[in-house]
Amino acid sequence: MNVAVFGLGAMGFGIAESILRAGHKVWGVDLDEGTMRRFQDIGGATSDLDPGGLDAAVIVVLNADQTAEVLFGSDGIVPQMKKGAVVLGCATVPPAFASDMAERCDGYQVHYLDAPISGGSAKAATGQLSIMASGTKQALDAAGPVLDAMADTVFELGAAAGAGSAMKAVNQMLAGVHIAAMAEAMTFGMTQGIAPSDFLKVISKCAGTSWMLENRAPHVVDGDYAARSAVNIWPKDLGIVRDIAQSARFEAPITETALAQYQKAVAMGLGREDDAAVAKVYAAQAGLNLPSADS
Amino acid sequence: MNVAVFGLGAMGFGIAESILRAGHKVWGVDLDEGTMRRFQDIGGATSDLDPGGLDAAVIVVLNADQTAEVLFGSDGIVPQMKKGAVVLGCATVPPAFASDMAERCDGYQVHYLDAPISGGSAKAATGQLSIMASGTKQALDAAGPVLDAMADTVFELGAAAGAGSAMKAVNQMLAGVHIAAMAEAMTFGMTQGIAPSDFLKVISKCAGTSWMLENRAPHVVDGDYAARSAVNIWPKDLGIVRDIAQSARFEAPITETALAQYQKAVAMGLGREDDAAVAKVYAAQAGLNLPSADS
Repeated sequence: MNVAVFGLGAMGFGIAESILRAGHKVWGVDLDEGTMRRFQDIGGATSDLDPGGLDAAVIVVLNADQTAEVLFGSDGIVPQMKKGAVVLGCATVPPAFASDMAERCDGYQVHYLDAPISGGSAKAATGQLSIMASGTKQALDAAGPVLDAMADTVFELGAAAGAGSAMKAVNQMLAGVHIAAMAEAMTFGMTQGIAPSDFLKVISKCAGTSWMLENRAPHVVDGDYAARSAVNIWPKDLGIVRDIAQSARFEAPITETALAQYQKAVAMGLGREDDAAVAKVYAAQAGLNLPSADS
Repeated sequence: MNVAVFGLGAMGFGIAESILRAGHKVWGVDLDEGTMRRFQDIGGATSDLDPGGLDAAVIVVLNADQTAEVLFGSDGIVPQMKKGAVVLGCATVPPAFASDMAERCDGYQVHYLDAPISGGSAKAATGQLSIMASGTKQALDAAGPVLDAMADTVFELGAAAGAGSAMKAVNQMLAGVHIAAMAEAMTFGMTQGIAPSDFLKVISKCAGTSWMLENRAPHVVDGDYAARSAVNIWPKDLGIVRDIAQSARFEAPITETALAQYQKAVAMGLGREDDAAVAKVYAAQAGLNLPSADS
């Protein structure tokens, strides 16, 4: 198959790599030249992309605006794509936006699969993501080989685009809350004489654990804030959750509180650090010294 | 060994059962007559308890006040216990209280092990709890056979009573936040058309999962609010966390927000229901119908 991946960030690069490894021809599109060179080095195509020749386009850009620009902007691909081709929308977007994209794609007889992803950059690179998919059977079938290459779990959430994005919003809500809660609990523990490494060793084996705690607490313990997933993701994703919740007149106070902690982290200049750096918000408030990379 | 278990609630009964099963003589003490009869039925002793004959006393009452009453109240056991016997303090208490109890026990040459527990009533009944233990080597040695009977994991957190309780506070902080966050996310999902059963199926396999989500979300899905662990636990335990945090001038906004949700649940008359009933706070606010036991 001929596949293009738009957005070669932490997730997109790994996805493109996994689709390449499955034997497909893959074009990569990213604004960063270094990234494009890296993609070329592993066998990806970076020039002469013809949207009309694509069987599938995987959109792994930052948000809804960027997705709309790629699909229907000034040089949007969908009007150029062939009948029966498929777009996989992988960015975290509001459910109503996904639904709108599906309708507009349908106008060009292009399939749209609402296909947000979960699992992190390591699983993107090994083709083991989880995908929360919703869309018509035709969209799912057309996307099949690409889904096989990038995911080991595909949750089929019904025929209506938007259901996948709703589930993704729910997942992000919990993931974002859990990282901030981990940071709150770990730094609270420090005020009681509990070393971050002991916190990780004990709590990861107890009822207080979470997927995110086990994944992110080691970054704080190691003093390693190289971004696997950046702080900046959370004001965006939890902001989407807040907006959807407000539209539904749903009060989400814990999510709002976690969002505020990430906003404080961004205000402290930590936006491009690993999201575990939200711990620095707590440490600054309480006058604590987090572990450094040297120690 | 001769062992007494004070407090035969959801955790205490299972602990007493596990110590019995290990071949020790076990006295049970509880205010509820039905519980005492149930304990007698499984081979426990419910009369003629002589504190002077005990090798170990396991305190599984509700809080610090009740612990102090059992140990040093009008008929307190510690002044009657023999030299070298051990008290295991299993209730969730402030670290400073545990430290004080250890010092007072020491005055009677009785060992005190700060030994808060984690794992839930099912693991209590099978002797597979996790214990966050701190205390002198002598206390740990004296408690050994009892720990073997009730736990499969004993975290040894140092010689100072209080360290165990600090770790327990950290664990409760996360566990309490995670249950409320699960409720917030599940009901938010319902506003977007996601059935609670689909929420559980998908999110438990994604990065948004937590130990508590996997344990408690099924209760909401099944509409089953028979208390394994009651809502009332959380205003108490998160209140302890808030008090410790305030003493340390530590701001814990996510914990405070979760605590407020449990307080609302208590105000709605849900205190004795399973703690998953915090979902009803969200459902009431948003006008959602949670699954019922019949459906």
